[in-house]
Amino acid sequence: MKRAIYREFGHPAEVLELVEEDSPALNPGQARIEVLRSPINPSDYIQVAGEYGVRPPLPATAGNEGIGRVTEVNGEGISVGQLVLLPIGEGAWRTEVVGEIRHLVPMPEGDLDQLSMLMVNPATAQLLLTQFVDLKEGDWIIQSAANSAVGTYVVQLAKAKGINVCCVVRRQSAVPALEEAGAAAVIVDSPTLAKDVRQATDAKMKLALDAVAGETFGRLAETLEEGGTLVNYGAMSRESAQITAGTLIFGDITVKGFWLVHWFSKASTEERMQTYGALTQAVAAGTLHAPIDKVFPLDEITEAVRYTMAGERTGKVLVAPNGI
Amino acid sequence: MKRAIYREFGHPAEVLELVEEDSPALNPGQARIEVLRSPINPSDYIQVAGEYGVRPPLPATAGNEGIGRVTEVNGEGISVGQLVLLPIGEGAWRTEVVGEIRHLVPMPEGDLDQLSMLMVNPATAQLLLTQFVDLKEGDWIIQSAANSAVGTYVVQLAKAKGINVCCVVRRQSAVPALEEAGAAAVIVDSPTLAKDVRQATDAKMKLALDAVAGETFGRLAETLEEGGTLVNYGAMSRESAQITAGTLIFGDITVKGFWLVHWFSKASTEERMQTYGALTQAVAAGTLHAPIDKVFPLDEITEAVRYTMAGERTGKVLVAPNGI
Repeated sequence: MKRAIYREFGHPAEVLELVEEDSPALNPGQARIEVLRSPINPSDYIQVAGEYGVRPPLPATAGNEGIGRVTEVNGEGISVGQLVLLPIGEGAWRTEVVGEIRHLVPMPEGDLDQLSMLMVNPATAQLLLTQFVDLKEGDWIIQSAANSAVGTYVVQLAKAKGINVCCVVRRQSAVPALEEAGAAAVIVDSPTLAKDVRQATDAKMKLALDAVAGETFGRLAETLEEGGTLVNYGAMSRESAQITAGTLIFGDITVKGFWLVHWFSKASTEERMQTYGALTQAVAAGTLHAPIDKVFPLDEITEAVRYTMAGERTGKVLVAPNGI
Repeated sequence: MKRAIYREFGHPAEVLELVEEDSPALNPGQARIEVLRSPINPSDYIQVAGEYGVRPPLPATAGNEGIGRVTEVNGEGISVGQLVLLPIGEGAWRTEVVGEIRHLVPMPEGDLDQLSMLMVNPATAQLLLTQFVDLKEGDWIIQSAANSAVGTYVVQLAKAKGINVCCVVRRQSAVPALEEAGAAAVIVDSPTLAKDVRQATDAKMKLALDAVAGETFGRLAETLEEGGTLVNYGAMSRESAQITAGTLIFGDITVKGFWLVHWFSKASTEERMQTYGALTQAVAAGTLHAPIDKVFPLDEITEAVRYTMAGERTGKVLVAPNGI
């Protein structure tokens, strides 16, 4: 078996390496899973860089989520041939995983690319829309990085509830796909964002979702209604989030951070099942989906990460450890 | 009578001018008040600059709060000789105010400098300590601009409740007065603030109060416990507030702005009376007080504002429109 590991924290293109080793035998209660697809999420390369909220012991296998098929079982509860989500935190960028059967989440057959991303991005989008503000049909929200996977899911989930999404992107070429996905307005980010949003929507936003940080963070806040909420869940600009004290004080704004790991640590089993049950059905049915830019073999993991981090993509980048 | 007015928004040292006019006669229900003291608060000169959350119609009289003595009455409810707080929003930087009797708040005799500041800064300090986080004896909080009037009140009010205050200042010379006032720790701001705070206090902060913005804002956030709250109520650095997305996301931080005007618009009469009743007693008794740097006559209002805005003071600057 092969896996992509890092022995020290650093730029993923420099510290990731492929190692080959024998497959371990299964202990009782374990299953072997052939890894089929794993997305390259920002949290994956931030974690390799050592800049994540938790640091794994080194050496570590990279990649946090993915989908695979059971090829061998030593115990009860799952069958050979079953499609499953990989256990989080085992390292997904590898040809096979040996995992505890009780940690495996069986999945329906369907689009492997889409299903492989279920654990992180659709749940993030769903929770961003439900955990902070009580949104009602006809309300307006705004989001930056709107053409990301999370951004696309936000548009689809919000539209299904009759919530209007004002999408902010960095380049004109990202506009048509978001309009087609159901965005109520799409605006290219600039220092005049708040004015542009008012002109395009004639509305004040109840909620702003930001994954860019930098000046975009404060610009989004300027579009909020008095007492509105701004939630940050990323920093694609790699700059500090900036906001004027006047916007915070006079706008009576609440700013929060969102991290899926915190939600997992607090959510009850019922909340998790409720959240993921609905998302699994929607992804399997194809009503919830994110654009895919490219799929790389595991042997090209360094190139895949470099390509992902360069930006200017049209969708998600995935790794296919056992062939595309 | 004389008053300090501005006909356009701009730098207070440039747009403030003194005008002299006849005293108006009293209508029924009104009283004439000789203005004795009015503090120069940051909100006063931010308002003259046109950068406040509300803009008065122009020309406007500057100054938002102060204390005076009733010299003439046309109606019931107040007596000549009574000390009163000036009605907010009438413009306090003037030799006399004609106000509605029902808007006047009678005050006990006492230190005029201290009593003149009652409406804005002590209430801000009290509400910063009570409106955001449920603080208990032994908890730690941190604040920037700790040697301001609000900062000094925060130390005194927190100490009375057994809450430990870590004070952050910009210069070493401000340290002794805060230690004497009861600060549990005093630290000079620098890029290593979070580390310095840990070393000095061995504690995580539950609440951070910021009136500086800029990089100090994010540094304070780094001292918070997971799930902590950062409240901004000013921008003495005149820079945007900066915070890394990692601090917000991984620290699960909540950021809020505080504006006394919002509180006034939402608070019930009972809440206002409860808040101001206790503060009035404490200020009149001398247990709650802020350092005074200098008192200027109204004729030197431009110089007084310039001096205030230059910073590096040892306390509040006041105007005494009818003699010091």
